[in-house]
Amino acid sequence: MTTLGQALASTARHNTERIAILDGDSRITWSQFAERVARTAGALAQRDVRRGERFAIYARNSRRFDELKWAGFWLGAVPVPINWRLAPPEVAHILNDSAVGLIVVEEEFAPVFEVGALAEWSDRLLGLPDAYEAALAEATPAPMGEASEDDDAILLYTGGTTGRSKGVRLTHRNIVSNALAFGLGTGARRDDIYLHVAPMFHSADLLGTAWFLIGASHAYLPDFSPGAFLEAIERYKASATVVVPAILMATVSDPNFGKYDVSSLRLLGYGAAPMAYEWIERTARAFPRGCLSNSYGLTETAPDLTIFDPAEFIAAIESGDRSGIVTSAGKPNVLVELRVVGPDGKDVPDGEAGELWARGPNIMKGYLNLPKETKAALAGGWLHTGDIARIDQGGYVYLLDRKKDMVITGGENVYSSEVEAALHRHPGVREAAVVGLPDERLGEALFAAIVPAPGAKPSVEDIIQHCRPLIAGYKIPRRIDFVEAMPKSALGKILKAELRKTYGG
Amino acid sequence: MTTLGQALASTARHNTERIAILDGDSRITWSQFAERVARTAGALAQRDVRRGERFAIYARNSRRFDELKWAGFWLGAVPVPINWRLAPPEVAHILNDSAVGLIVVEEEFAPVFEVGALAEWSDRLLGLPDAYEAALAEATPAPMGEASEDDDAILLYTGGTTGRSKGVRLTHRNIVSNALAFGLGTGARRDDIYLHVAPMFHSADLLGTAWFLIGASHAYLPDFSPGAFLEAIERYKASATVVVPAILMATVSDPNFGKYDVSSLRLLGYGAAPMAYEWIERTARAFPRGCLSNSYGLTETAPDLTIFDPAEFIAAIESGDRSGIVTSAGKPNVLVELRVVGPDGKDVPDGEAGELWARGPNIMKGYLNLPKETKAALAGGWLHTGDIARIDQGGYVYLLDRKKDMVITGGENVYSSEVEAALHRHPGVREAAVVGLPDERLGEALFAAIVPAPGAKPSVEDIIQHCRPLIAGYKIPRRIDFVEAMPKSALGKILKAELRKTYGG
Repeated sequence: MTTLGQALASTARHNTERIAILDGDSRITWSQFAERVARTAGALAQRDVRRGERFAIYARNSRRFDELKWAGFWLGAVPVPINWRLAPPEVAHILNDSAVGLIVVEEEFAPVFEVGALAEWSDRLLGLPDAYEAALAEATPAPMGEASEDDDAILLYTGGTTGRSKGVRLTHRNIVSNALAFGLGTGARRDDIYLHVAPMFHSADLLGTAWFLIGASHAYLPDFSPGAFLEAIERYKASATVVVPAILMATVSDPNFGKYDVSSLRLLGYGAAPMAYEWIERTARAFPRGCLSNSYGLTETAPDLTIFDPAEFIAAIESGDRSGIVTSAGKPNVLVELRVVGPDGKDVPDGEAGELWARGPNIMKGYLNLPKETKAALAGGWLHTGDIARIDQGGYVYLLDRKKDMVITGGENVYSSEVEAALHRHPGVREAAVVGLPDERLGEALFAAIVPAPGAKPSVEDIIQHCRPLIAGYKIPRRIDFVEAMPKSALGKILKAELRKTYGG
Repeated sequence: MTTLGQALASTARHNTERIAILDGDSRITWSQFAERVARTAGALAQRDVRRGERFAIYARNSRRFDELKWAGFWLGAVPVPINWRLAPPEVAHILNDSAVGLIVVEEEFAPVFEVGALAEWSDRLLGLPDAYEAALAEATPAPMGEASEDDDAILLYTGGTTGRSKGVRLTHRNIVSNALAFGLGTGARRDDIYLHVAPMFHSADLLGTAWFLIGASHAYLPDFSPGAFLEAIERYKASATVVVPAILMATVSDPNFGKYDVSSLRLLGYGAAPMAYEWIERTARAFPRGCLSNSYGLTETAPDLTIFDPAEFIAAIESGDRSGIVTSAGKPNVLVELRVVGPDGKDVPDGEAGELWARGPNIMKGYLNLPKETKAALAGGWLHTGDIARIDQGGYVYLLDRKKDMVITGGENVYSSEVEAALHRHPGVREAAVVGLPDERLGEALFAAIVPAPGAKPSVEDIIQHCRPLIAGYKIPRRIDFVEAMPKSALGKILKAELRKTYGG
């Protein structure tokens, strides 16, 4: 098998009556799912969405979202999932850039296409679920298209929060190979029930692909809240899911946590942002032992680069060494090669920090319509991740900072993550973000924004005293502000560019 | 990662001090293993073995065998492991066909190169282990070669028992992709200890590749005996291994079985030949619950096509349905697509028997120097396996017969495996093989060779009476002979061509 369409055909053929999807009280078998995907593909083809053509999906997580994605894969057409939290001009950029012929939109969201920047697209809409179901009812199942493994499978927009978002072209091979590596690294099993919590417009949802390839079952969470998340785990007996730290922190802090049965979980993956040690420990203790696993990747890597083996992770947590490997993102998955490269383009000495470069069959084909940016990102056959990292003697990978978030203060390189880790160790700190602000004397001066823990009221002096034994003097923030909330992306990443804009002037 | 050399570099880099190899009381770390591989590569390069060049390995299982294989992968040179049970003219054919420049030979076997068909190769030998270690000591580590993923990685000869053996060209991609699929399907883990029991000159040993990619540990069994096998499991705390049914049957029958600790086993894979239900059940009971797993493949498929999920297999065994899915070879691995095709080249109706065709990234590049045979085997982009199979409603794959072993008697197709399964259900039968012999009236008449169980003396009439309620009259053998032993290949496959030659005249 080489394309996702071929993969689905094989999974369905060999898992006919097994459950593919759990949706409320409904159960959809693999035969039924494949049949619906083929009909959806027929409905798309009737609307001139053919091999190589793109169509947008603007919706919350649901089984129909996956039917649409897989119908695209089946045809060799290219789904373009869109973050529905973006502003209309940002969405318009994506629609124009990707030149979609059809937009499948959750009916509740349809009004955004009635006025303003998106009004000109209103004649290309197909409403979800009603109009979609009607289209399905009258469609003929389409045969599998002739896609090749190096064809685009999906187009995912990234980086929309700073500058114009870029469309990341991921091929069938990118997605299949990454799914295998992630499935192997996390021990995916056919009897798993995978709960799709991360937004399906984000690359994180591709982490669930292994569970399609092996014929496991899937359930969907349309809107996150701690209660809904816990309820879904209990209801579906979910055994595998991948989320962001913010979700874990909100969930284990929920007063009703203990009322739900979460014993079915075997794999609780998280990534996309670092999590403070206290929260790692608390989460590991709240959920079944050994299910927690950290991973790291980018949209450009379809999306995984590293995995922290769940067994090694729990051992690291239980060792109590809060500054050891537990602060790493684990090791590269089985298909990925990593290098740590200095400004001169050469590998830095072992253990030192530099930009992380990655190579493997999961690396994107490029950015749509951006040949220059593509060439720069993939120069020399390696993806330049823009992340500063180091790799220790044992091979664990530590993410230190985004290259653009690294602060150079008084001639010293400071990785914001190191300062943030020190701040997080203060019991009165719930969230902390460190950026550099322009400074006449130092070039950049360190600024920390802190969200206090509920009920806590730490002072600036408290925080500084707390940091002194933990980090060098030049790494201690020159300015500390307490804030109610951090600016965040849809996936819960703190937007440092926003912080710099707000405070740096 | 795309080549096996890149894979090794990454595994070693990220598992430096972890144990790669257990050998007696010695422990070799991944850093040390990678260093030895690079030195071996240097020694090979000094002997003019370079990218694309082939070199032979003629030895029993050992860690040095793997050093040599991986040194080939590292350089982009092509190891040609040779079955040391072959007769000298058969070996000469392989050496000539593959045009090797160097033969690494276990010193004990070196005398076969002193006289006769192999004497002309005696100036290309490098003895294992002594001359090899001396070469290593004075070699410089070689840098990784520039192999591409579609280059030949290994050349494995197959089919030497009937006609001239064919060299199967497997690429880096073939091996890596199959390793991922097999590792995912069997739940390979970094903390596994993989025991190499199947001969390393056979494609079955490639099943251990996943355990290299993930940085697990490896141990080797040079000569099989039930005692040595059990002793190695206990000594190394082996957790994963793949063997043939003959080994399982000999091992669980061994009177000393209970004296060894086999509780470390998590995966006991078997394949290459069917095993009677009684033996499956007995083996499943003797080893840790749920570790047994059946799989099926060919050298041409690098080598796996199907896997019986270990959890589903134990459930099938415990259901007691001895004629149900337990008689299947499981389901295709996650990268393989299968078709069941009739003589007209079209898919047969669901559930019916036909030739099994396979497609996937694990399918060989072709046979060396045999363009016609390659074209025939890969016609239409699918590998024609030569195996007769059916796929049931649930997607399980049943191997019925080799196409060439199917018997047409009185106009009826009879699959020897079905008759053999009936014979195996007689308690007095240890092994049974059924072939068609020329017959004037029927075209072919069914002949059964039977090895009685120890102490049992079944009569021909017993056997026939036993078969009557189990299979149709025309499937009951016309002639039954009791024999002391079956003619077998190195891997324990019964050689039906030999039986036909001996009995068919």
